[in-house]
Amino acid sequence: MARFHGIIPYLVTPLDAEGRIEAGVMAALCDDLIAAGVHGLTPLGSTGEFAYLDEAQKRETVAAVVAAAGGRVPVLPGVAATAIRGAVAQAKACRAAGADGIVLILDAYFPLTEAEVERYFLSVADATDLPIILYTNPNFQRADLSVASIARLSRHPNIVGIKDASTNTGRLLSILNRVGGNLDVFAASSHIAASVMMLGGKGWFAGPACVIPRECLALYRLCREGNWPEAVALQKRVWAFNEVFARYNLAACVKAALRMQGYAVGDPVPPQSPASPEACAAIAAALAAVTGADASGLPSHH
Amino acid sequence: MARFHGIIPYLVTPLDAEGRIEAGVMAALCDDLIAAGVHGLTPLGSTGEFAYLDEAQKRETVAAVVAAAGGRVPVLPGVAATAIRGAVAQAKACRAAGADGIVLILDAYFPLTEAEVERYFLSVADATDLPIILYTNPNFQRADLSVASIARLSRHPNIVGIKDASTNTGRLLSILNRVGGNLDVFAASSHIAASVMMLGGKGWFAGPACVIPRECLALYRLCREGNWPEAVALQKRVWAFNEVFARYNLAACVKAALRMQGYAVGDPVPPQSPASPEACAAIAAALAAVTGADASGLPSHH
Amino acid sequence: MARFHGIIPYLVTPLDAEGRIEAGVMAALCDDLIAAGVHGLTPLGSTGEFAYLDEAQKRETVAAVVAAAGGRVPVLPGVAATAIRGAVAQAKACRAAGADGIVLILDAYFPLTEAEVERYFLSVADATDLPIILYTNPNFQRADLSVASIARLSRHPNIVGIKDASTNTGRLLSILNRVGGNLDVFAASSHIAASVMMLGGKGWFAGPACVIPRECLALYRLCREGNWPEAVALQKRVWAFNEVFARYNLAACVKAALRMQGYAVGDPVPPQSPASPEACAAIAAALAAVTGADASGLPSHH
Amino acid sequence: MARFHGIIPYLVTPLDAEGRIEAGVMAALCDDLIAAGVHGLTPLGSTGEFAYLDEAQKRETVAAVVAAAGGRVPVLPGVAATAIRGAVAQAKACRAAGADGIVLILDAYFPLTEAEVERYFLSVADATDLPIILYTNPNFQRADLSVASIARLSRHPNIVGIKDASTNTGRLLSILNRVGGNLDVFAASSHIAASVMMLGGKGWFAGPACVIPRECLALYRLCREGNWPEAVALQKRVWAFNEVFARYNLAACVKAALRMQGYAVGDPVPPQSPASPEACAAIAAALAAVTGADASGLPSHH
Repeated sequence: MARFHGIIPYLVTPLDAEGRIEAGVMAALCDDLIAAGVHGLTPLGSTGEFAYLDEAQKRETVAAVVAAAGGRVPVLPGVAATAIRGAVAQAKACRAAGADGIVLILDAYFPLTEAEVERYFLSVADATDLPIILYTNPNFQRADLSVASIARLSRHPNIVGIKDASTNTGRLLSILNRVGGNLDVFAASSHIAASVMMLGGKGWFAGPACVIPRECLALYRLCREGNWPEAVALQKRVWAFNEVFARYNLAACVKAALRMQGYAVGDPVPPQSPASPEACAAIAAALAAVTGADASGLPSHH
Repeated sequence: MARFHGIIPYLVTPLDAEGRIEAGVMAALCDDLIAAGVHGLTPLGSTGEFAYLDEAQKRETVAAVVAAAGGRVPVLPGVAATAIRGAVAQAKACRAAGADGIVLILDAYFPLTEAEVERYFLSVADATDLPIILYTNPNFQRADLSVASIARLSRHPNIVGIKDASTNTGRLLSILNRVGGNLDVFAASSHIAASVMMLGGKGWFAGPACVIPRECLALYRLCREGNWPEAVALQKRVWAFNEVFARYNLAACVKAALRMQGYAVGDPVPPQSPASPEACAAIAAALAAVTGADASGLPSHH
Repeated sequence: MARFHGIIPYLVTPLDAEGRIEAGVMAALCDDLIAAGVHGLTPLGSTGEFAYLDEAQKRETVAAVVAAAGGRVPVLPGVAATAIRGAVAQAKACRAAGADGIVLILDAYFPLTEAEVERYFLSVADATDLPIILYTNPNFQRADLSVASIARLSRHPNIVGIKDASTNTGRLLSILNRVGGNLDVFAASSHIAASVMMLGGKGWFAGPACVIPRECLALYRLCREGNWPEAVALQKRVWAFNEVFARYNLAACVKAALRMQGYAVGDPVPPQSPASPEACAAIAAALAAVTGADASGLPSHH
Repeated sequence: MARFHGIIPYLVTPLDAEGRIEAGVMAALCDDLIAAGVHGLTPLGSTGEFAYLDEAQKRETVAAVVAAAGGRVPVLPGVAATAIRGAVAQAKACRAAGADGIVLILDAYFPLTEAEVERYFLSVADATDLPIILYTNPNFQRADLSVASIARLSRHPNIVGIKDASTNTGRLLSILNRVGGNLDVFAASSHIAASVMMLGGKGWFAGPACVIPRECLALYRLCREGNWPEAVALQKRVWAFNEVFARYNLAACVKAALRMQGYAVGDPVPPQSPASPEACAAIAAALAAVTGADASGLPSHH
């Protein structure tokens, strides 16, 4: 089963005012990210507003990214549902569309037991031969994975990694201690990527990597080389982004940052609002601080 | 604009093992509830597992209930989405299918501001001429309506009622004090129906009314007559149901209770589990206590 | 064992700027409340800032209220601790000071099991012969009592009542159904007193009764007479107070309202701030609406 | 103003069955910890059950530790109150008893605004000339410090450090980025000490350091030397302790572990229970795993 590593941006979903996927904008963004050196692409994560799109929009988005990647880097779309049936259908559609793996999310409405949570992930893993990255985000999702559940799920051959988007970095160490080589652990943007890498993490799935891929990649390389003093120094600068994206609506922020860079990604799906002037100023300041450039004005791409 | 009142059951969604709507079972259930005297029918509420169904399943469910009702009582399906676009599409589909109103739910992923929450409800209200019951359930949904927002929304001519499924009955009094005649307030099963009626409520939207419609209707009539001592005595017996349904998975419990009564409604959508033996025993005991009959054995219908 | 009923105000603790108890102000307030007809007095509740006072201040407060009451109405001080040892010492001090009962509160730091929670209440009940009202307030306290625990505690002969300050009125019905005649159930200000009385409640322990005792007593009498239409009408007016006290700091609000009425009760214990101008305006408006008088200006007492 | 660094154990409070401080046991524990090389001692933290002790017990505890330390390492007792008045009194008592600094905790009952929170800390800082470590533990305390508040407080000359016991390690990076050299940041046991050190932390305040001081000190030295591969390897072994202490009652666990090592520290303050057999087994396993020795049997000290 294929394994993954490195910097894998969570892509926004560029939409026009009628909710149609802007495949051309997506292609340009993917091209630029691949040129920058990213190790994979993930559409339909939190940043990609999976929770706001219908099934047709999701399928179009996956098709656009697979086409844009053209086999140069693996594509791992998010698969998210409350029902096993819906998740299996999405996973099969990803497979058919040419995806290289999936990032599997459980949403919930009524509370679930640990056994029900595991049943969801195992049922999808049994129904596809794509490698699966578990994704749990207790800030936004209504189900979470316990460390004991993660340990049991890690024994399934198709389940190869986990992205935990809690803010609890100690939990990642517990997972690493428990599942060792069975499961690759990835940082989310709620964690300090350099800390996760130091503990044995394999990389970073993150929205900020859409916007500052070069800095994220430089950070990843410093970590891989064990150059911790320089990694920490760069991490401290990059962290401004994590802070902005945590304070305001994540999709709105990444879309605003990309628009500042010249990508016509449109607004977040209503009723979400576009980033406020205050948020835009914070994003511009973070861009300027991180890239050392004047980010308030000219687009740096296109 | 039409207004509603009385006992309006939240219907379960009968499904076979492949996830197909069992329209015949739904028709039988609706017939029996109408014969018992219910004042309306609501498919696709929490009890109806709206959060676990795809759009095609939802459309079939609405069609089945509208057909079964045959104009005898109003049908008010749940409309629930994270995106305005999805909610408007569902509302239009309900209108086209012959529904008499909708119960409008906002789900969310990222946190929303009050203004964004109101924008969702107002956008749907502007896009349909069906009367709208607001529904907020802070236990399961990730967005809530403040009393101030409810007061503002109550001025829209299409917004005619609210079902609040918090457990905070004082909040209902605040709403009643604030919006008076503009908005009909309905009990949910997390509230004591008799208390809500005493404060000026217009009725009860509830899953238990699928299972014990006669008792719910008797309670409603006692409240309407102002016969509070008998209303409280009956309410105390009926409350056993609210307790069971709050302790275990709501859809699983209502489905289990209906199966005990002879309706082949199937299991809740996986990964939800069917009601456990412990939950079934509690349901059987509640049925026996409420109806005064032996509920553990023979089906009472069909 | 004595039982209690009726309107029992939670008293503020009048303090000067150095934190000394103003016994004279407390005596005047108690006199006026007894003259108005209240059925008991409770110092050292949430409103009385028990959580901000040291043991010497608490003892002085109890002594002042016992002296002021002079046997005319029962005095039931709050007893609150994290440790059994501290609660037993406070209960014994209350007994020695001449109190007629206690309102027993468990605070916590580390989470407790149900058995540990029950051990606290039972240990205090075993160590005193004063009648005990259980008090649980999940909004502010870090331990809560489950309905099953309440049912077990109700079997202790010294435990005679419960004041539940959750906002979940249905929970009170569950308690009433379970413990019947063993335990008197009282409304807190987070509940609608008329609803609790209708379900079988024995009265209302509340901060607002310091400020509007006559209206609270009238409401209680209407409920006792079963005059529900007039009870609801009065309840709706009185509710403005519950709303204000829930929105702002409770002790600050009751102290501000009493100062408007001419009682020199001082400020809440720092770092709590006095009620803001906005809160004071809301309090004045609620006073005016409830009492039908101009509450912004002249003191109505003294 | 003095600054601190290194491994500073949060001491348990040894008590007999009547709640008397066991000064001899405390002296033996302090002696052994100083011999092991710890950089300071903190009585009356969460581990020291400050929330369960009365003022006399707290004073005796501080006196016992100051006497035991004999000036060899700084003593920094916890000071915790809801009221400014209580905190100032405790701080003055610590100063009089010979403490070298305080770890300052705000407890709360009613919610506080940011300004009220800051007022508490600044009032205590103005009232003492002891150096102050801020301590915030949002898991157990009802008030938290925002990053903006921490930045403002860091400007007070007496406020020299912060121990944040959230599980959110990213928050520590935000604090470090914001307050730089003004405030020393320390790990709590809810964080990975090696990660906090790598980001610029000055040390670790922790209950586990009572039990495994040598391993904690070795970890600190590896971090100071920048030997991250060995630091991570040791951190992974030590983490078993953090996990056990987070899963069960913290004070009960540290007391149980110390009893296994021969210190007669007694039980946690009732109604807290002693560590369960299951927790004791987990502690023994963690001790064995961390120290490489058989911890289930013989005491390793005394």
